[in-house]
Amino acid sequence: MRWLRYEVNGQESYGIVEGDEVVAVTGDPFAGYELTRARHRLRDVKYLVPVIPKTFYAAGLNYVEHITEMAAKRGEKPNIPPAADIGYRANNALIAHNENIVIPHDAGELVQYEAELVAVIGTKAKYLSEADALSCVLGWTIGNDMSERTWQRNDRTLWRAKNSDTFKPMGPWIETDFDLEAARTIVRVNGEETDNFQTNHMLYSVATFISRMSQYLTLWPGDVVWMGTEGSPKNLKHGDVCEIEITGIGILRNPLIREKR
Amino acid sequence: MRWLRYEVNGQESYGIVEGDEVVAVTGDPFAGYELTRARHRLRDVKYLVPVIPKTFYAAGLNYVEHITEMAAKRGEKPNIPPAADIGYRANNALIAHNENIVIPHDAGELVQYEAELVAVIGTKAKYLSEADALSCVLGWTIGNDMSERTWQRNDRTLWRAKNSDTFKPMGPWIETDFDLEAARTIVRVNGEETDNFQTNHMLYSVATFISRMSQYLTLWPGDVVWMGTEGSPKNLKHGDVCEIEITGIGILRNPLIREKR
Repeated sequence: MRWLRYEVNGQESYGIVEGDEVVAVTGDPFAGYELTRARHRLRDVKYLVPVIPKTFYAAGLNYVEHITEMAAKRGEKPNIPPAADIGYRANNALIAHNENIVIPHDAGELVQYEAELVAVIGTKAKYLSEADALSCVLGWTIGNDMSERTWQRNDRTLWRAKNSDTFKPMGPWIETDFDLEAARTIVRVNGEETDNFQTNHMLYSVATFISRMSQYLTLWPGDVVWMGTEGSPKNLKHGDVCEIEITGIGILRNPLIREKR
Repeated sequence: MRWLRYEVNGQESYGIVEGDEVVAVTGDPFAGYELTRARHRLRDVKYLVPVIPKTFYAAGLNYVEHITEMAAKRGEKPNIPPAADIGYRANNALIAHNENIVIPHDAGELVQYEAELVAVIGTKAKYLSEADALSCVLGWTIGNDMSERTWQRNDRTLWRAKNSDTFKPMGPWIETDFDLEAARTIVRVNGEETDNFQTNHMLYSVATFISRMSQYLTLWPGDVVWMGTEGSPKNLKHGDVCEIEITGIGILRNPLIREKR
């Protein structure tokens, strides 16, 4: 099942995607819903961020080739995380499928995508074993962890490097039926493939992260956990269009523009 | 004006504190409100976290003596931040005035308070000058940035060191009339004063942080910015009661218990 959050005629709603249409519901996939008779063509609705999380979690460094290749670019030794210590991103930066990523006017040239699988939490959970960890996951979506590398390297925190407004595209929808083992993540810039990797080739699995997190914190419906990226992402500039596909979920597409001040 | 968020008879509401009573409103201080005729004694209501922020910002290292004293304890040189780079905390960890801080069962002995001034954003804001920065602030409250120092030092991120459930007490209310220059922050553990410092003796001012943040990100109504702490906080253990007073705002009081597994 595909859960779309969307706007039509100024009204926000959740709906279930059926082919090239969405069937509106009352309520939401977290607290409960009822189908309505309203249907819209997908091309006629504005896609919204699938959920605004209570807490926005991000694994950060979670694919070995990404860690080693990024360290090599900086002339440093790779620093493989010794445990599944979760990090954070910020809700101000979230945008939906099709919305513009706005590069700050004073950003450098090293503005890069990071293609990430996102687990969307569906039920309140604490003290989950690894075997039970995925029981709290409602479904899966796609995130683009946009990063300005100069700020990432030099600032004391990741605030503007990772969390400038529009730097966290998420969508297009939440897919509840997803074969994580079979999935591949594919990035295309202006239609040309720039990355293609096995989505689940992670250092620490989704279950490992969620189980460990849940020993200390309560996961809440609507929380999201971004799982990190593989490889060595490419630069993006004004006029580019970045598409991230995760097979079995869909495609998250965002154009880029540079802010004028 | 003091804005209390509270629960009575199972209903959550905002209200305005008058003496030892609270006058209920419909709506909230951000989107608009109307007074009602309902009044309750403060001692009869359950205090709630004053606001669940869209994004939870925290300055981290922002008082020079705290930075130098904490570094000395670790046998390191102090690392004074060269710019007002904002950090983050997590909503899962928020609790209200009077609620228990629960120390995880496997935490060490170095579980410490950090007494912080909190700016509560009232209006959507971007590109603010330092002179205009405080125009987006609705009011002020108190935060306790509870920290487990062993995890803070050894984990790759601050997740369980700073964001274990219950590690972010905030309250008791939002005070809109506040003289920041005159304020002092006072900490008492089991009634005994353990810290007392000038609240505004900050490395980077509230206005400096908000102005710089707003060049890259939109501040939203309900966002909170925790401003850091001074000095060298003390350990807390099961059975202690920690009170943080900021003169002109009030007292945030929380008992501590250690989790049993």
